[in-house]
Amino acid sequence: GLEGLVCVKDFEERALRTLAKHPLDYYQSGAGHEHSLRLAKDAYLRVKLKPRVLRDVSNCSLKTSVLGRPATLPFGVAPTALQRMAHPEGESANARAAQTRGAVFILSTLSTTPIEDVAAAALDARKWFQLYIYKDRGVTRQLVQRAQEAGFEAIVLTVDAPIFGIRYADTRNKFSLPPHLEVANFKGITRSDMTSSGTGSGVNEYVAGLLDRSLTWKDVAWLKSITQLPVILKGILTVEDAELALKHGAAGIIVSSHGARQVDTVPAPLEVLPGIVEKLKGTSCEVYVDGGISTGTDIFKAIAIGARMAFVGRPAVWGLACGGQQGVEKVLGILEDELRITMTLSGVGSIEEINRDYVDIPSVWTSASKL
Amino acid sequence: GLEGLVCVKDFEERALRTLAKHPLDYYQSGAGHEHSLRLAKDAYLRVKLKPRVLRDVSNCSLKTSVLGRPATLPFGVAPTALQRMAHPEGESANARAAQTRGAVFILSTLSTTPIEDVAAAALDARKWFQLYIYKDRGVTRQLVQRAQEAGFEAIVLTVDAPIFGIRYADTRNKFSLPPHLEVANFKGITRSDMTSSGTGSGVNEYVAGLLDRSLTWKDVAWLKSITQLPVILKGILTVEDAELALKHGAAGIIVSSHGARQVDTVPAPLEVLPGIVEKLKGTSCEVYVDGGISTGTDIFKAIAIGARMAFVGRPAVWGLACGGQQGVEKVLGILEDELRITMTLSGVGSIEEINRDYVDIPSVWTSASKL
Amino acid sequence: GLEGLVCVKDFEERALRTLAKHPLDYYQSGAGHEHSLRLAKDAYLRVKLKPRVLRDVSNCSLKTSVLGRPATLPFGVAPTALQRMAHPEGESANARAAQTRGAVFILSTLSTTPIEDVAAAALDARKWFQLYIYKDRGVTRQLVQRAQEAGFEAIVLTVDAPIFGIRYADTRNKFSLPPHLEVANFKGITRSDMTSSGTGSGVNEYVAGLLDRSLTWKDVAWLKSITQLPVILKGILTVEDAELALKHGAAGIIVSSHGARQVDTVPAPLEVLPGIVEKLKGTSCEVYVDGGISTGTDIFKAIAIGARMAFVGRPAVWGLACGGQQGVEKVLGILEDELRITMTLSGVGSIEEINRDYVDIPSVWTSASKL
Amino acid sequence: GLEGLVCVKDFEERALRTLAKHPLDYYQSGAGHEHSLRLAKDAYLRVKLKPRVLRDVSNCSLKTSVLGRPATLPFGVAPTALQRMAHPEGESANARAAQTRGAVFILSTLSTTPIEDVAAAALDARKWFQLYIYKDRGVTRQLVQRAQEAGFEAIVLTVDAPIFGIRYADTRNKFSLPPHLEVANFKGITRSDMTSSGTGSGVNEYVAGLLDRSLTWKDVAWLKSITQLPVILKGILTVEDAELALKHGAAGIIVSSHGARQVDTVPAPLEVLPGIVEKLKGTSCEVYVDGGISTGTDIFKAIAIGARMAFVGRPAVWGLACGGQQGVEKVLGILEDELRITMTLSGVGSIEEINRDYVDIPSVWTSASKL
Ligand SMILES: Cc1cc2nc3c(=O)[nH]c(=O)nc-3n(C[C@H](O)[C@H](O)[C@H](O)COP(=O)(O)O)c2cc1C
Ligand SMILES: Cc1cc2nc3c(=O)[nH]c(=O)nc-3n(C[C@H](O)[C@H](O)[C@H](O)COP(=O)(O)O)c2cc1C
Ligand SMILES: Cc1cc2nc3c(=O)[nH]c(=O)nc-3n(C[C@H](O)[C@H](O)[C@H](O)COP(=O)(O)O)c2cc1C
Ligand SMILES: Cc1cc2nc3c(=O)[nH]c(=O)nc-3n(C[C@H](O)[C@H](O)[C@H](O)COP(=O)(O)O)c2cc1C
Repeated sequence: GLEGLVCVKDFEERALRTLAKHPLDYYQSGAGHEHSLRLAKDAYLRVKLKPRVLRDVSNCSLKTSVLGRPATLPFGVAPTALQRMAHPEGESANARAAQTRGAVFILSTLSTTPIEDVAAAALDARKWFQLYIYKDRGVTRQLVQRAQEAGFEAIVLTVDAPIFGIRYADTRNKFSLPPHLEVANFKGITRSDMTSSGTGSGVNEYVAGLLDRSLTWKDVAWLKSITQLPVILKGILTVEDAELALKHGAAGIIVSSHGARQVDTVPAPLEVLPGIVEKLKGTSCEVYVDGGISTGTDIFKAIAIGARMAFVGRPAVWGLACGGQQGVEKVLGILEDELRITMTLSGVGSIEEINRDYVDIPSVWTSASKL
Repeated sequence: GLEGLVCVKDFEERALRTLAKHPLDYYQSGAGHEHSLRLAKDAYLRVKLKPRVLRDVSNCSLKTSVLGRPATLPFGVAPTALQRMAHPEGESANARAAQTRGAVFILSTLSTTPIEDVAAAALDARKWFQLYIYKDRGVTRQLVQRAQEAGFEAIVLTVDAPIFGIRYADTRNKFSLPPHLEVANFKGITRSDMTSSGTGSGVNEYVAGLLDRSLTWKDVAWLKSITQLPVILKGILTVEDAELALKHGAAGIIVSSHGARQVDTVPAPLEVLPGIVEKLKGTSCEVYVDGGISTGTDIFKAIAIGARMAFVGRPAVWGLACGGQQGVEKVLGILEDELRITMTLSGVGSIEEINRDYVDIPSVWTSASKL
Repeated sequence: GLEGLVCVKDFEERALRTLAKHPLDYYQSGAGHEHSLRLAKDAYLRVKLKPRVLRDVSNCSLKTSVLGRPATLPFGVAPTALQRMAHPEGESANARAAQTRGAVFILSTLSTTPIEDVAAAALDARKWFQLYIYKDRGVTRQLVQRAQEAGFEAIVLTVDAPIFGIRYADTRNKFSLPPHLEVANFKGITRSDMTSSGTGSGVNEYVAGLLDRSLTWKDVAWLKSITQLPVILKGILTVEDAELALKHGAAGIIVSSHGARQVDTVPAPLEVLPGIVEKLKGTSCEVYVDGGISTGTDIFKAIAIGARMAFVGRPAVWGLACGGQQGVEKVLGILEDELRITMTLSGVGSIEEINRDYVDIPSVWTSASKL
Repeated sequence: GLEGLVCVKDFEERALRTLAKHPLDYYQSGAGHEHSLRLAKDAYLRVKLKPRVLRDVSNCSLKTSVLGRPATLPFGVAPTALQRMAHPEGESANARAAQTRGAVFILSTLSTTPIEDVAAAALDARKWFQLYIYKDRGVTRQLVQRAQEAGFEAIVLTVDAPIFGIRYADTRNKFSLPPHLEVANFKGITRSDMTSSGTGSGVNEYVAGLLDRSLTWKDVAWLKSITQLPVILKGILTVEDAELALKHGAAGIIVSSHGARQVDTVPAPLEVLPGIVEKLKGTSCEVYVDGGISTGTDIFKAIAIGARMAFVGRPAVWGLACGGQQGVEKVLGILEDELRITMTLSGVGSIEEINRDYVDIPSVWTSASKL
């Protein structure tokens, strides 16, 4: 049962004990020696709270708005591939849990459940679709089309993955998608297995073979030309690229290091967030963040620094692994409770009130070497 | 016996081995993953002493004054709830030990011994009463009345606990106050048990149900209107709130993170002390501090930075657990000896002489991430 | 087999398990308590990447130029002595692997294979010769002559080793070169064994006995007078000496702490690199770096900070120990792949594009004390 | 045998395994939780070397001068009490070893061998006498007289020990000087045993009972009035006291935390050295340092920062414990060799050349909390 699991770390530890080695390694790993993986979490600890007292906190609302529409929660589920390795109901269970809690759900291009099935499973969830652009632009166009038709309300273009980073465990495992699963959106369209050719990770080979690594900013224009949905760019870590995103008409950006899975020793997303927020303040481009979040207090800090929304990747996977839809619901519920308690004990009653005055940001952020 | 216990850490370790799991977890825990709990102690280590030599230190006095009256010692016992779980004589033994040593004793609203009994057990102790304001203001008013009549000389209003923070161990334990004990001040008045409803910590549920989370600064005025006793605000961590405390007529404030039990990743009390002392210097509002103190040298540093008095919570509980009144007496005696030795070896002979010249405060305080 | 070895650390760990104690200690050790050894690696972790997105990275070239000639790779193999202890084919295998990969290979004066044999084994490799100046200048002159004739294209004069540093393990082991091996370049010329006299390391005794510790900058002039080859100075750690190197006509310098084997608590080479690069920018003197590199990302950082080329010492030795030529080839291949991936994921397609904009250098570099 | 012991740490580890618990605890302990003990060592690691190359280092001399006379070595043996617990020949063996090596030897007032015997055992050693001022000034005067007559050339007045600090292990052990030993200088003069009364450390009780804790700067004048020997003040940690030492005619000061045995969380001596050196530069008062030195490289750094001489306490005790006179000789020999090698590899040939240009001092020194 899930009863003894009282924090996200509990879910993670349970998942680590229960998942089979290859899927676990796939979910858990970061690039290289995983310094940035540790760093991403670590950064949240280095931000200190500045709680205010004697404020009336009898009411506390987590409501916010995103992409111009009201949202129940200021956080959501980041896109993660291959969720049916964690639980038979995979992406559908995850989306349904998000729906129950009122969290935004982002579906990965590399879903093991077709877009349409996930949409049907969670009709009322706010759903965004994460897009990888395939060399075959016909395939890509069709994918965007299907997402739009299935009721997804935004396209999240991942920009930090022209190829996949080296995750040593996957290389060692010669990771392959289990044969009973497939990259479900491409069945009958293009390659939908991820079998390793025998020299390394099958998922890396899949990506190297099919995705378009020649993408540039003009492809953002192309994407906008083929869909009416707002386009969000996921995987930005520099102020310079944040500015370019604004200039190229992105409705939002997700400050992210792809779960520290691409290249090791990149900074923690939280660490670059202040500078990016500063640059995009007052513009039409919303700023979100993901990576390393495992408590509601972490979400409070992301918002205080200026993120409109925070996303969690692995925590939802751990929830899925521990108890399918119910597991994810509990994970999201814990984050919600912890965020509400952090707000209450900080003296704020609503998301809009949370700002930089409630946190203390370190002057020197990181010391990866200690990790 | 207590003979082998030569420092507060020894008492802590003994208590950790002897207390039953649920009470121990209750006493020991901090909020969340306990980064701030470690940080609170850690901060004291980062302040360095600047000992002066060739001063006549043949005499060394620990006398000071607090709230306008002379005090034997510059430190006291912080309010901690439910002390009879640690020792049958609980709050009475603790208060008697404080009386023997000449330390100020603060009794918790959530005492397992009634106000009047504690007062009777330690008639000559300097006693302050820690107040939680109940939704039922009649109950609250009555409590203040009783404290005043029982000879308590100040009301310490805890302002950092509109609700209680999440302490994972208590949640896991579904912590309940053992049935043979009660929240003694409320017997026959309002709810006096702390039985968990089965989903989490009984003490958190008790607080969520009974305490008033709509408190604001105007309630300080209300409290002052119902008692002649000086009002001290406990749980302040920002310069802004310290200023408001002064403005609203607090006789003193305790810079405190509630033993790091409310929300994790708040700064160490010692770390925010310099700024607060600076702001209240020369005003009518005295500044005290608690959290993380475990040696007499720690107390020296708190005083050097500007605290008029330092309080210890858990150390007294460990004393109680190891040997009742005698245990607390030894703990307080160790702190007294260590403070005197630190003074002697720093070249100061009285509390008034201790100032910022005797310590070196780090420019960058904390790195929670390493904890 | 080498199949399970997917990163340089894997090679290191395998070598640690397979090499005999004395050779292993010799290869592995740093001076003293090895703080600088850890520091050298650590420094690379403290530099953060700043990856740029939406750049066309479908092509990625590692080509560069060094000493005025094109080079296949921006990294090479640093000179390490006594390689036949690691593998029977020693220096020849190492050089052949460098040739296969297109890496510059630097042969040590203290080779266990004669200059001429190494040259013959790897005719097409770009080979430089590392020189120790012997008290006997005739011997030295002859050595330089032979290198030049054998097709080595530069003389790398090691300037940080008038004597050898204390490596405690070697002292304990009374390290001697195994009797079936010799300092092959000196057979029949001068002493070619390294037998310990029984009080400490035989290699230290050899160096103390034969090398000239009276070398000064005028000996650089002498060296230039006896050879047409460009002279590179290896072992510079200060801006002051970098300037002197330029002034005395060095074609390049290797910023290096000799693998942290000379004196402990010197800074990491990477840490002093920015200042030195700054000083030599735009001059005729190229700047290279070695020490602590174990991933392709490390190489990317060295280049970004301004090194024209980076060298690896121990990684090649571990490759040799694990699989001779094939082992070194795989090590160099891993570094190449990792560098290419780091470039791709940073948004750069060629070595020339890599610059300071792609990294974040810490303001405070090192904290050896934590190591 | 001593053969396998190649660095001071080896001696320490051997001593830790061979000494009986009570003496070992006495020698090893620092005050409190020993943060400053670790800090003292740690500080040396944080200073980085800046080695210069291509200097003629064929000659390297360790000669220096101290108190106006030439000295063979720039380091010596700090006074440590009760040396016959470590080896039957105690102080005599230690002094003889110092004589052999040419190191200054400081004898403790609390010697287990009489002044005269130590002097006789090491007639040619440079010997200084460490003085504790007893309440009984007659006893004190007599002691100074005897030292002067026995050929000691300076009085080292310890100013940081009006009482002794709390060393928890000694308290637990109720440490007593073994009955076959005595505080040899006082036999028949005043109390010469150190038997614990049963509540704590006998050495602390001895000191509390006999030493004069009313000492002030005027007692320095008194001391100077009763002896022609130069007076050195040992135990200074602030710039302010260094200035007062100069003003009161001290011939030298030892920047020292008494081996971190007095009060915990004082800074490392090395850390306060730069400020003190700066203040006394060019005056008649020499500056020495002790505490935490365990390699010749540490000594190089102390000199580079401006100490005229560095002293080692425990390293000599470990030498004594491992092999009496021979053990100390080897320890001092290791330090000498390591210092010479550090000089050679830094490009300096004499003590006078060593200066601040050869080291890099951290801007932020300490982080005791990590220790
Ligand atoms: C197992 C796994 C699979 C992922 N798959 C995708 C993906 O298909 N598309 C994508 O844009 N990001 C993907 N990510 C990155 C996540 O969207 C997100 O950036 C990251 O997980 C956030 O860090 P966290 O796991 O610490 O919360 C994946 C991450 C993980 C851990
Ligand atoms: C077991 C426990 C119970 C506590 N109960 C109360 C309480 O009833 N009221 C209150 O104001 N503070 C309470 N506190 C906080 C203490 O008054 C004090 O702020 C804290 O213990 C100081 O930190 P220390 O334990 O490190 O000395 C409690 C703390 C502990 C550890
Ligand atoms: C086992 C070993 C032997 C070495 N021998 C030499 C040598 O003969 N000549 C020289 O200039 N440097 C020598 N070095 C230093 C290397 O050229 C290089 O500076 C160092 O290994 C770089 O650090 P790394 O091992 O971390 O890559 C040696 C290093 C090692 C580890
Ligand atoms: C066992 C021991 C006994 C000591 N006894 C004395 C003493 O009698 N007088 C004194 O001035 N300092 C005494 N000291 C302090 C030393 O003189 C010196 O300051 C210290 O040992 C230096 O630190 P180190 O041990 O790290 O080298 C003693 C230190 C130790 C470790």
